[in-house]
Amino acid sequence: MEIIRSIRSMQNTVQAARAAGKTIGFVPTMGYLHEGHLTLLQEARRENDIVIISVFVNPLQFGPNEDFDKYPRDIERDEQFAASFADYLFYPDVQEMYPGKRTTHITVTSRVDVLCGEKRPGHFDGVATVLLKLFNITMPHRAYFGMKDAQQVAVVQGLINDYNIPVTLVPVPTVREEDGLAKSSRNVYLSEQERQEAPRLYESLELAKRMIARGERSLSNIRNAMVQHIHAHTSGEVDYVEILSYPELHIPNDVTNEIIIAIAVKFSKARLIDNITIRGEALCFVR
Amino acid sequence: MEIIRSIRSMQNTVQAARAAGKTIGFVPTMGYLHEGHLTLLQEARRENDIVIISVFVNPLQFGPNEDFDKYPRDIERDEQFAASFADYLFYPDVQEMYPGKRTTHITVTSRVDVLCGEKRPGHFDGVATVLLKLFNITMPHRAYFGMKDAQQVAVVQGLINDYNIPVTLVPVPTVREEDGLAKSSRNVYLSEQERQEAPRLYESLELAKRMIARGERSLSNIRNAMVQHIHAHTSGEVDYVEILSYPELHIPNDVTNEIIIAIAVKFSKARLIDNITIRGEALCFVR
Repeated sequence: MEIIRSIRSMQNTVQAARAAGKTIGFVPTMGYLHEGHLTLLQEARRENDIVIISVFVNPLQFGPNEDFDKYPRDIERDEQFAASFADYLFYPDVQEMYPGKRTTHITVTSRVDVLCGEKRPGHFDGVATVLLKLFNITMPHRAYFGMKDAQQVAVVQGLINDYNIPVTLVPVPTVREEDGLAKSSRNVYLSEQERQEAPRLYESLELAKRMIARGERSLSNIRNAMVQHIHAHTSGEVDYVEILSYPELHIPNDVTNEIIIAIAVKFSKARLIDNITIRGEALCFVR
Repeated sequence: MEIIRSIRSMQNTVQAARAAGKTIGFVPTMGYLHEGHLTLLQEARRENDIVIISVFVNPLQFGPNEDFDKYPRDIERDEQFAASFADYLFYPDVQEMYPGKRTTHITVTSRVDVLCGEKRPGHFDGVATVLLKLFNITMPHRAYFGMKDAQQVAVVQGLINDYNIPVTLVPVPTVREEDGLAKSSRNVYLSEQERQEAPRLYESLELAKRMIARGERSLSNIRNAMVQHIHAHTSGEVDYVEILSYPELHIPNDVTNEIIIAIAVKFSKARLIDNITIRGEALCFVR
């Protein structure tokens, strides 16, 4: 695996690969890789001639009071982790990605008033900006995103559609610990006690799924049951519980595709998110 | 020359061309082609294996009171015009380019409070949006733009830099009629009398150039002389006369590269623009 730090060098590499008829799979990450990323890399490896992983903690997608500075970083570990699957590790510094004043701004105007978007104003503008750059730098045929960030997947698909970006977004199911906790770089912030409690997030999603399977259609009943489950069994504080159509992220009163059940819980030093999507045609919920 | 109307078909074509190691030159236009476009096509032909021209009158870059509906269109003539130089004419309809509600918005934040940007709010947002799409649809190695729209060239270079778009922008000098009038699709709107007067725009630019060569450094003296020249010799009304650093488009009190002298004049049914750029290192103007 070759580590590339300059945009120009990365672009020259992918242009040559494309000219040689190779297909390119791309896994964008903020590093501190875990088995969730591994699954993305494996999928990319399986479907493409060349696999590129990027490690870049993007300052634009962190709010002023968020954890940009203390977001976990360990590039040596990431290198070892990625080496078996990726051909190139793109690892630019902030100056390389944002060398000066930008002359344009991208605003995400849909799907941002729900879930994490509501709590993190500007977050998805930063995500859209960095991904538009990374797509142009790595020129992938396919890009792999974990469904743990389902809202991100929906927003990025919107970005791809809006600008006809010639890449196929491949959503990859969330990878979980044996006890159900979704893998996340932020799990390292959990205390031992919180780590014991954290699987309750996924339990609450499963609880909601069972209620829906049994015919429950009241959003407030389902949400109340989930909140109760979290507060009864964890020290965390529920940030949001939402049930929406997917990928539209609207109130699910006329679902044509899927629904998403999503939860965010604040622990002492980490805010964890999790979600499941379920087939939802013809489902019609009431508040 | 093949005419392609669908985005998917155009993308498949360019992906295959790239995979075969071909280079792609792209000339984006709004159609009603003239010799200015011809020069762009010739340059593209000379430098690339494959040449694509697009004809798309982009509604997003027209203001509510502008000439979108009556912008001149003649696709048969454009086809004949482009056929000797281009391999593909990309000719989508509005529905193909803007099929539904977009989920993001691009705002151009620099260089828009001067020249045409000041008079046409949102114009360059529309230009940036359509070009981002067209670059992703035609995947060119090089894209050709006429310097007649010098502000557009500067804004597009900013867009390319911001998002690391893997395309080289090639600015091509303005093509003029024998009497000096810059070629433009909008020249057809001029009355016979106005057509006689229109070369005075270029004359006023040359006048400014001579004043600067003789040592004049007062922006207001130069601008006054230009306005006087236009009003003395034409029935048009000066919309703006500006002298700025290029490509920054700032007040030229510390020029490191070039300066641009630009003029816009309103005639009865057409607003004409023209400009020249001159080497301007170490030039320092006063208001």
